[in-house]
Amino acid sequence: MSLQEIFATRAGRMKASEIRELLKLLDQPDIISFAGGIPDPALFPKAAFQEAFADVLNGPLAGQALQYSTSEGHKPLRDWLATHMQAIGIPATPDNILITSGSQQALDYLGKLFLSPGDTALVGWPTYLGALGAFNAYEPRYDKLDPLSNRSGADYCAAAQAAGGSAKFAYLSVDFANPTGATVSRAARERVIDLAEEMDIAVIEDAAYQALRFDGEVIPPILALEAARRGGDIEECRTIYCGSFSKTLSPGLRVGWVCAAMPVIRQLVLMKQAADLHSATLNQIAITQVAETHFDAHIETIRTAYRARRDVMLDALAAHMPEGVSWTRPEGGMFIWVTLPDSLDGADLLARSLESERVAFVPGHAFFADGSGRNTLRLSYATSDEARISEGIKRLGNLIGKALDS
Amino acid sequence: MSLQEIFATRAGRMKASEIRELLKLLDQPDIISFAGGIPDPALFPKAAFQEAFADVLNGPLAGQALQYSTSEGHKPLRDWLATHMQAIGIPATPDNILITSGSQQALDYLGKLFLSPGDTALVGWPTYLGALGAFNAYEPRYDKLDPLSNRSGADYCAAAQAAGGSAKFAYLSVDFANPTGATVSRAARERVIDLAEEMDIAVIEDAAYQALRFDGEVIPPILALEAARRGGDIEECRTIYCGSFSKTLSPGLRVGWVCAAMPVIRQLVLMKQAADLHSATLNQIAITQVAETHFDAHIETIRTAYRARRDVMLDALAAHMPEGVSWTRPEGGMFIWVTLPDSLDGADLLARSLESERVAFVPGHAFFADGSGRNTLRLSYATSDEARISEGIKRLGNLIGKALDS
Repeated sequence: MSLQEIFATRAGRMKASEIRELLKLLDQPDIISFAGGIPDPALFPKAAFQEAFADVLNGPLAGQALQYSTSEGHKPLRDWLATHMQAIGIPATPDNILITSGSQQALDYLGKLFLSPGDTALVGWPTYLGALGAFNAYEPRYDKLDPLSNRSGADYCAAAQAAGGSAKFAYLSVDFANPTGATVSRAARERVIDLAEEMDIAVIEDAAYQALRFDGEVIPPILALEAARRGGDIEECRTIYCGSFSKTLSPGLRVGWVCAAMPVIRQLVLMKQAADLHSATLNQIAITQVAETHFDAHIETIRTAYRARRDVMLDALAAHMPEGVSWTRPEGGMFIWVTLPDSLDGADLLARSLESERVAFVPGHAFFADGSGRNTLRLSYATSDEARISEGIKRLGNLIGKALDS
Repeated sequence: MSLQEIFATRAGRMKASEIRELLKLLDQPDIISFAGGIPDPALFPKAAFQEAFADVLNGPLAGQALQYSTSEGHKPLRDWLATHMQAIGIPATPDNILITSGSQQALDYLGKLFLSPGDTALVGWPTYLGALGAFNAYEPRYDKLDPLSNRSGADYCAAAQAAGGSAKFAYLSVDFANPTGATVSRAARERVIDLAEEMDIAVIEDAAYQALRFDGEVIPPILALEAARRGGDIEECRTIYCGSFSKTLSPGLRVGWVCAAMPVIRQLVLMKQAADLHSATLNQIAITQVAETHFDAHIETIRTAYRARRDVMLDALAAHMPEGVSWTRPEGGMFIWVTLPDSLDGADLLARSLESERVAFVPGHAFFADGSGRNTLRLSYATSDEARISEGIKRLGNLIGKALDS
């Protein structure tokens, strides 16, 4: 971009101010908001962080915590994460881990690492908006990843080449994904590995919600399934796992991680060194202590709270939604995805809902790389109490009923 | 890049392991190291951070501090920084400020914003290695920015166009720069504005060391000089100021900022939103408290300590360096730049110095975009006590004397 173009464009301002207006609106106490994509701050392990930051800043690591550190991240945190990865079936060592500033940064770096303008990224339809935002900077083309369809790797490759680039990776949010709440089945995970092998491309596994399973059968991460195929050798794996503490301990500390074969990690370390040197040292040391002492118990607390809210929202949807409306039944995470009859538009409904019902949600079309999905909504149950969830869904159901009748 | 290329390359490993070996070597207590580019951890305001983190995590902002926040950064911190900018002559409002994860991240984003492969970045010769590292990701060509030479803006533009791209910005580290310790004169700053105007390009002003002036006359930042030309209107300015708390309060928290006209800030906010959402909320809130309560007094403490170390190093250089060796006399910051007679090579000298004298420094050629400068060294006086500075320079002077005699 040139300085002249920057001074000429006003797009940035309009978008930011629109978002700010919307947030201001949602901040009013009489709005019941299912719009947020954020965890409930009442569930942060505040006492554990108070203790950890005090311990670090008053202890022998204080000087180190305030100093520059290595780009790959704090070794004891990478040790803890390697053990955590092993517990979910991924044979990782600390050298397979890079600490990032949230998993958003991992997605940005992976876009930067793999994509040249015109290359193809295979993504779900819909998919995580932040992933599209991160990848967009590198000007890819998107193709719809549909592992259980009849399309072969050669079909995807031919389409990518016809568009003037190469297919570079398949990106999937695997468990209780943002925005749909859906989980990728074991068969689809295995098929993604087959496709990636056929195409000789990477798989980016976004596991931001992985630890938040409430019920149902645990499905191993794609990286675990691939490692099992390779005799337990992660160094032979093409899958790149992106994890985060944002949905479990705290998003405000900006600590996430990438787990992958060492050649990939080494490239990302060089990239991180050039881009921001390293993630905050103090935060990495403090979160290590919180993870070591509180992770498992805290996960149980969050799961219990979110499970109850999901159950209330599912019950309310069953009670109040008119015929023709369907929704997902997530086994974890924060989101339920609603599909309206084709005649309704999520953005129109939001405007009417804010005006007459004071209920907020996110229209679903934003999550589609091709701008489709106008008749869908994303609802989050993470930040509302159970009474407000019931009331909000009741109001929304009535509004949709009226909209269908008119 | 493709997955195959990543798995094929071993360059990442070699570089990282080499650096690790060097760091391991420098970690030995009998080495006197002038190699670091880092502040003295004994000078971090540890007590102020203990108090600030405890206050934030035990106070009403705890939930906010652990939560997601806005990409532009914590408003009270942007307020404090706007006032800080005004105090050094820059008519900024909080809307002219973006919080970044260190100024390294600002350099990465500015490279991403401006540079396409083959474009030209005008940089000093030598210049900050981290800036080259950040810009390199966007594959620019470099041209030597020499504001007081006879080259006109048209000359620079013609060279850039002949190389198949456009000149996009001039980058300068202005005060007591890493690696030379040199300060860009007022005349050169004014001339850079003239050149940038003639070429209609941006100026990136790296002010990482700006607050660390020990003596000499304060020279206004380029952005202040440009704003003065524009009747005090920062919105008419092409200069982008990059600041950091890394050299004043703590690098481990990763808090820096960009100060520029709003259209530039808005583009960078969108970029940050896509790349890592925002810098750590907790760190921004805590550093606001430390800045509000301790910044001025703490700067005095650091300046006093570093000034004494610089004086000792300058005295020792005068006492022990053989004829034909010259060095800079920095008015602040952390570095002295030594130029050896042409017959000597800094990298060879380092190998010999580590072996026989146990003194470390950084060979200067790494800081030249064109790989020249083989007869230069960077010395940091920031992390050694005065006795070790005297002893180390004495040993180094002896070694250089011997090398010149042989």
